[in-house]
Amino acid sequence: MGLALADDLLAQGLQSVQREVDDAFDSLLPVPDDSRSTLVEAMRYAAIGGGKRVRPLLLTAVAAMHGVSREAAIRAACAVEAIHVYSLIHDDLPCMDDDDLRHGKPTVHKVFDEATAVLAGDSLHALAFDILADPETSTDPFVRAELVHKLAIASGHNGMAGGQMMDIAAENEEFDLHTVTKLQQLKTGALLGAAVELGAVLGRVPAEGRLALRNYARDIGLAFQIADDLLDHDGDEEKAGKALRKDAEQGKQTFLSLLGPKRAREQAQALVDQAIGHLSSYGEEADLLRAVARFVVERDR
Amino acid sequence: MGLALADDLLAQGLQSVQREVDDAFDSLLPVPDDSRSTLVEAMRYAAIGGGKRVRPLLLTAVAAMHGVSREAAIRAACAVEAIHVYSLIHDDLPCMDDDDLRHGKPTVHKVFDEATAVLAGDSLHALAFDILADPETSTDPFVRAELVHKLAIASGHNGMAGGQMMDIAAENEEFDLHTVTKLQQLKTGALLGAAVELGAVLGRVPAEGRLALRNYARDIGLAFQIADDLLDHDGDEEKAGKALRKDAEQGKQTFLSLLGPKRAREQAQALVDQAIGHLSSYGEEADLLRAVARFVVERDR
Repeated sequence: MGLALADDLLAQGLQSVQREVDDAFDSLLPVPDDSRSTLVEAMRYAAIGGGKRVRPLLLTAVAAMHGVSREAAIRAACAVEAIHVYSLIHDDLPCMDDDDLRHGKPTVHKVFDEATAVLAGDSLHALAFDILADPETSTDPFVRAELVHKLAIASGHNGMAGGQMMDIAAENEEFDLHTVTKLQQLKTGALLGAAVELGAVLGRVPAEGRLALRNYARDIGLAFQIADDLLDHDGDEEKAGKALRKDAEQGKQTFLSLLGPKRAREQAQALVDQAIGHLSSYGEEADLLRAVARFVVERDR
Repeated sequence: MGLALADDLLAQGLQSVQREVDDAFDSLLPVPDDSRSTLVEAMRYAAIGGGKRVRPLLLTAVAAMHGVSREAAIRAACAVEAIHVYSLIHDDLPCMDDDDLRHGKPTVHKVFDEATAVLAGDSLHALAFDILADPETSTDPFVRAELVHKLAIASGHNGMAGGQMMDIAAENEEFDLHTVTKLQQLKTGALLGAAVELGAVLGRVPAEGRLALRNYARDIGLAFQIADDLLDHDGDEEKAGKALRKDAEQGKQTFLSLLGPKRAREQAQALVDQAIGHLSSYGEEADLLRAVARFVVERDR
């Protein structure tokens, strides 16, 4: 497939998934007629609009390759995105990264307050598992239980939350490349990997048939993070919609600080090529995944 | 059964479940050999030791009535308790209730720091669903998916977190008895109800056969909260192991402020009698549940 066609495929995929995820969150989060309304408004503020929706795009792309209904794929995509959004809300809190801006708008604790932000994050965390365990996502209870199990591990202390803890420790410790790689595989890689894996679980791909997809996810996860480091260093704050240049301020070791910009760029590109290589047994049905792999390093936000 | 025997049954039940839950958390949370160790230490600090373990006792008592293996019941009990413990960690944060003491020891953010407390709560939240969706809890995927679904709803904005949001609003609004009842049914009742329900799900009690147990849980949930209000008003801070007299300071309407102490006590007792009444179709296999109903209003912490 030519690169122009791949760009079209990606642009359409992103645009479509962004709209579908927004619509699904809108349905999943009706505002109640009591004093919980502020909580649900805060959840909606964080979950609807903004965000590239890379994880939903990955999940729905894998699901589409395996004949999953679009409705089920979008529900599972919302679950993964709910975890991502909750982690951003908590990450932006004053006691964590203390950020005022996210996706170009004020962070949840700025618009509401800190207590509401903590509870909105917690509620989105619970919503993710509520969605996955609901028979509307899959009539097969084995699929539902496996979706939950993969996502819970990716979210907890052996996944994303564990990576965030390592990231905090990175401010005071001198991490080497091996440790930074582990940190990022947990902090970003676990949830990106879960997005791909949940698509395969919905498509009833047996565990042994998911190896190529897992390897693809691992490689784009690291490439994604190197691209993030480069954007943090070179990017445009307005396009990024958040504060940049924080890693260097906090004296954290990153792929960029350890490899330098030239090698970091080469490494990200090599990982993308390697990720696409893992898809060699797939035909054009994996073209969207190939386009996503290129997108994670070429994006400007 | 005589009251002395019931007291023995309760004391033994509590002591046993406290030890088993501590042991299970100890196994579930090995400390990793990297910079996530602080996170897991914080999770262990909050989850192991301390706490009455009322929810685990309820869950395991219902499970035992329906022939569930002790191991499976304790695993599910740990999941419910992990949700309870995570909610206490977040509730104690400076931006929430700002409490320094819990179960007679310094709160998590005091011993560690706020960022670690946020992440430890988040990680225990994820752990709950990891445990329930794991085939070790039940070989039946339908049971696993249903356990997750019930607990996710009880934890989120339509359950505990929603109740906490109403509780925050109660500082600034003048709630009537109807609204305080709804608040407490969400804040405390949802998770107590989930503990009972999860025991029944593990025991493969069909939904229509759970009505008596649900009614029992609803009544002891409200009785539990009235007892909490009375303890907050009259209790001993040392025994309670936490700061008391906060409701009145914050000008919140509670069962106690709305009913007065005499009617509140009568109402709690009436709810306990009513809860026990719902168990009339059960024989002595429900004696522990009857003892728990009396315990929730007679406890001194």
